[in-house]
Amino acid sequence: MSAKVVVSKRRNVNRQAIFLITLWPFPEDFFLSDPELKSKVPLEYLSHKEKYEEAVRKACLLFRKVIQLQNEGKGGMDNFREVLGGQLGSAILPDGNPITLHYVMFIPTLMGQGTIEQQAEWIQKAWNCDIIGTYAQTELGHGTFIRGLETVAKYDPKTEEFVLHSPTLTAYKWWPGGLGHSANYAVVVAQLYTQGKCHGIHPFVVQLRDEETHEPLPGIKIGEIGCKLGMNSTNNGYLGFDNVRIPRNYMLMKNSQVLPDGTYVKSPSSKLTYGTMIFVRVVLVQDAATYLKKASIIATRYSAIRHQSQIKPDQPEPQILDYVTQQYKLFPNIASCFAFQYAATWLWDTYNNITEELETGQLDNLPELHATACVLKAVSTADAAQGVEMLRLACGGHGYMTASNLPSTYGLVTAMCTYEGENTVLLLQTARFLVKMWQNKTNVYKLPTMKYLATALNRATPFEKSVEWVIAALQKTAAGKIDLANRHLNERVAKGQSYEDAWNNTSIELVSAAEVHGRTIIVEQFYNTVQGYKSRVSKELGTVLEQLLQLYAVNAALRCTGDFLRFTEVLGKDITVLQTWLEELLSQIRPNAVGLVDSFDMRDEILSSALGCYDGNVYERLFNEAQKSPLNAEPVNKSYNLYLKPFIKAQL
Amino acid sequence: MSAKVVVSKRRNVNRQAIFLITLWPFPEDFFLSDPELKSKVPLEYLSHKEKYEEAVRKACLLFRKVIQLQNEGKGGMDNFREVLGGQLGSAILPDGNPITLHYVMFIPTLMGQGTIEQQAEWIQKAWNCDIIGTYAQTELGHGTFIRGLETVAKYDPKTEEFVLHSPTLTAYKWWPGGLGHSANYAVVVAQLYTQGKCHGIHPFVVQLRDEETHEPLPGIKIGEIGCKLGMNSTNNGYLGFDNVRIPRNYMLMKNSQVLPDGTYVKSPSSKLTYGTMIFVRVVLVQDAATYLKKASIIATRYSAIRHQSQIKPDQPEPQILDYVTQQYKLFPNIASCFAFQYAATWLWDTYNNITEELETGQLDNLPELHATACVLKAVSTADAAQGVEMLRLACGGHGYMTASNLPSTYGLVTAMCTYEGENTVLLLQTARFLVKMWQNKTNVYKLPTMKYLATALNRATPFEKSVEWVIAALQKTAAGKIDLANRHLNERVAKGQSYEDAWNNTSIELVSAAEVHGRTIIVEQFYNTVQGYKSRVSKELGTVLEQLLQLYAVNAALRCTGDFLRFTEVLGKDITVLQTWLEELLSQIRPNAVGLVDSFDMRDEILSSALGCYDGNVYERLFNEAQKSPLNAEPVNKSYNLYLKPFIKAQL
Repeated sequence: MSAKVVVSKRRNVNRQAIFLITLWPFPEDFFLSDPELKSKVPLEYLSHKEKYEEAVRKACLLFRKVIQLQNEGKGGMDNFREVLGGQLGSAILPDGNPITLHYVMFIPTLMGQGTIEQQAEWIQKAWNCDIIGTYAQTELGHGTFIRGLETVAKYDPKTEEFVLHSPTLTAYKWWPGGLGHSANYAVVVAQLYTQGKCHGIHPFVVQLRDEETHEPLPGIKIGEIGCKLGMNSTNNGYLGFDNVRIPRNYMLMKNSQVLPDGTYVKSPSSKLTYGTMIFVRVVLVQDAATYLKKASIIATRYSAIRHQSQIKPDQPEPQILDYVTQQYKLFPNIASCFAFQYAATWLWDTYNNITEELETGQLDNLPELHATACVLKAVSTADAAQGVEMLRLACGGHGYMTASNLPSTYGLVTAMCTYEGENTVLLLQTARFLVKMWQNKTNVYKLPTMKYLATALNRATPFEKSVEWVIAALQKTAAGKIDLANRHLNERVAKGQSYEDAWNNTSIELVSAAEVHGRTIIVEQFYNTVQGYKSRVSKELGTVLEQLLQLYAVNAALRCTGDFLRFTEVLGKDITVLQTWLEELLSQIRPNAVGLVDSFDMRDEILSSALGCYDGNVYERLFNEAQKSPLNAEPVNKSYNLYLKPFIKAQL
Repeated sequence: MSAKVVVSKRRNVNRQAIFLITLWPFPEDFFLSDPELKSKVPLEYLSHKEKYEEAVRKACLLFRKVIQLQNEGKGGMDNFREVLGGQLGSAILPDGNPITLHYVMFIPTLMGQGTIEQQAEWIQKAWNCDIIGTYAQTELGHGTFIRGLETVAKYDPKTEEFVLHSPTLTAYKWWPGGLGHSANYAVVVAQLYTQGKCHGIHPFVVQLRDEETHEPLPGIKIGEIGCKLGMNSTNNGYLGFDNVRIPRNYMLMKNSQVLPDGTYVKSPSSKLTYGTMIFVRVVLVQDAATYLKKASIIATRYSAIRHQSQIKPDQPEPQILDYVTQQYKLFPNIASCFAFQYAATWLWDTYNNITEELETGQLDNLPELHATACVLKAVSTADAAQGVEMLRLACGGHGYMTASNLPSTYGLVTAMCTYEGENTVLLLQTARFLVKMWQNKTNVYKLPTMKYLATALNRATPFEKSVEWVIAALQKTAAGKIDLANRHLNERVAKGQSYEDAWNNTSIELVSAAEVHGRTIIVEQFYNTVQGYKSRVSKELGTVLEQLLQLYAVNAALRCTGDFLRFTEVLGKDITVLQTWLEELLSQIRPNAVGLVDSFDMRDEILSSALGCYDGNVYERLFNEAQKSPLNAEPVNKSYNLYLKPFIKAQL
């Protein structure tokens, strides 16, 4: 992302690695050097209210600058993408941007679901920021299961209006970013009722606040939902309706319509609205890679600076990076950064190809894409969250400090396990597709990610120390697990359980099968990517990429040795070979570890970590960060005279 | 803990379970009903500085009340224990108590390491709170490896004083609770130099601040370290010395002494100072159980209230507790609560027995106790932290909210993985003892926790569906892993590596071996405890305890199937039996799930969770908590007129 190329003697890896990872240039300095975009006091010291106010200040300034760049013809949507979804935005607004959803959800929904006339009415206003919108779908009582939403939009043909209403407390919208006090409009998802019939959920544009005074409009009950594990300046809000009336043409009608007399005209294909959901999950795989990179840089650089304990008596304390247990915490996560990055790139390309097909009416590949996006989102976000936490713990006590930026990074990455489809729910969706394909294998050959299912179970996979073997063994294991889960499902049905109960009772095995399928795809794509690079990069870089691939593969294998021993021909003694292979790779990667994380090329301002800076001045930075605490501005805090002194001086 | 017995129709388990878990009564109402001990605004909305000031206010009041109770003859140390280490303290001061270390570390160290004369001088003052102390050991550069501490205490025989000095920035004390702005004294651990020689680390009493004005004394550089993932009102501080002089008799000399002329007189046994360290780890196993109970109650009750999605079409949305994948997230953690509780109780008894032996000069059992405390601390805190996080994620988006109290609970429980001995370091310490015992097996028979090592490897363990089999298989696996790691260690030495390098290169396997050993002890103690209870409880309660034991055991087995397949006679088809056994247990435990967590008997005030209250009014509470946000006190935040309106109205 930065054009700056950083070089240092302790860095050994060919800088080509940069170019394999990030491609588009971006004027980071224009933002990061602006003193107005820095906070006088680190945000963590402010009150919740002050955090929000500071975030609004910065967000307005940030978008002014993006628009300025655009007006000057310097970059277009890419700038928005980096500021909104990239790491630059999170460096400037580390605890969330209260206007993000205006760009990420409000405008795209108007574009995707509005008619041409509606787009003409709304998009210019939204694009000029004359109105600030958000996207209100999730409710207090319902998240991933959107069919269960309770907010009602009832059509009244007499006035040609919809009446929005929250029949229960659980019908209140809950979570939308910027909804609390920032947005004055929202796209609201509600159950559409017309002519006495419910037609399921549909999107409506609703004005929430007066465009001049910002006061909530009559019937709008609105506020913020309170503090959270992270994202405390995103201004997540709640929203209740007390019979709020909106004009008929405020329903977004690109897909379905309600005519003036109340007649409902159905969408030609419900699969078309699928698109955005898949798109977001595709992006999340990339985000998982980015967060894991951030934590990997911080923990690896810190491990090169921190010296502790003794390997040998009477020798100086070694870098903790030289402890093999520490390498085991760091290096597999570095390998995962590459794995998730390549999987994200591949998924993005696949998504684009299939989206192109959709436009020509070809829908055949959509279910596989959906199943793949579900499982990759679930596996990559779960692993990235666990990885970030492992890396945080690998930094010991200092990883617990806000100044390390590891706690906030964890707060952001773990949220991804829940939003945009809870991970267990997503794994079960992939499992449903896998079982369907398994039960009717004739189609499996046509599906790139699943064709292995046709042959894997009968293929001999004698052990050898190679990535190819790991892939074959993972495929056989995934197939074996799907087969076994499917048999257990059928057995339960044969014993008289309904298919639904049998499905629920088999769900632990189904989730596990889907997970192995996901890991299989990730190792395969890593393998394919490295094969593709080999002719294009130096021999040295090729070797390092191969080591990372092997490390990812052998670690994936060692995570499921129990399954391998059940479903493949592997033997106990082979596991010992895998363990030795892993240990060899850790020692091969050791000299390049710092260079590898440098190649992720995140600027110090983006890392925002006292432990992770490029210059390695860990202790000076930790100390300087502590000096910023407002408590340290005065030698004696007022609580001494107020409470502590009376306590000390009292006769107890 | 509460005397109140809660009963409800939806609760099925025999209330006897309460008495198996907590034993001592405590006047919770005296504290929890005091309006002065409540905060007007939930702490999370305050600034960092305000959080500290509010914590000092409450802490002083809390201890006044404890002392009042004591003066009235109502309970003694038990009250302190509950307020300081129990859940009551964390209900009143959820983000930490800035005076805790005065009672938990300062006074005990004076008692444990001061001479009779020193105790006479200091303890009365400390006990009356005429002085407030803390314990300053960890430095910016060194934590678990205490031999590496850099703070120097150099004896000057001319003035009969010690000169305390921080030769580097990394020598600054860093982390002690209350050190920032609360304490005016500290026990400081420093490298003792006298007559030109370093004698290693020793404890010194140092005055930090003026007893009247609270101003830092000359040469004392002091402040707080800044924000952290949790415990933001514990006032963790830093402390540097610029040649600070203290009288000779401020060195705590119970064990070692420096005579007026500077002669160093060595401690008779260094093992005696071991005691406190082991004690704290023993207590942490109990704490791990307590935090996991808290999260289990919250997540289980919420799962009984939350309805979502559909198992069967056209049927109402089920409680999410009926999804088998949800049960799989909750019930093994409930079983772990019992497992850790019983392990903690057993370890506590063992600790007390061995401490009694110590007083008669019997030191033989100390190394085994040390190894056991290390591994149980590491396994229980790691599992509890992972468990709390899994339970938080099992509550979906609402688990991300501060009002659920799950984020703070995680912040507190994960810290235990690092403090009082970093978990990987502790596992390696246990591994060191295990390998020593393995290499010289003659002594193994005498060690209750390790005698299995003498025979496990040669014992046949044909598969059967029983806890006894799981224990035998775990023992054989632990022995197999220790044996294999030991062989790899020897092979590396035979190939020319130094023992230390070979140890480092084998450390992944060593850690893994120690971990299985720890799990073996936990399952064994769970088994022994349930066997002991069987004759004392009703048949129904006995059945439930047996189910929990089985669930813990089968889950422990399924977590290491790869190891079982390597080191025991288990076959792939047996794993399928284990999986079915697990599923049967989940369905058996389902009707009692809510009753089981009720039996942990934590009051709503202790849980402090909108999701976990006894009455199940989840949504009302979430909504009411949101109303407490100061942002919701006014319909339009000032940032609208300051920033948002100018942004909206600008011609962009």
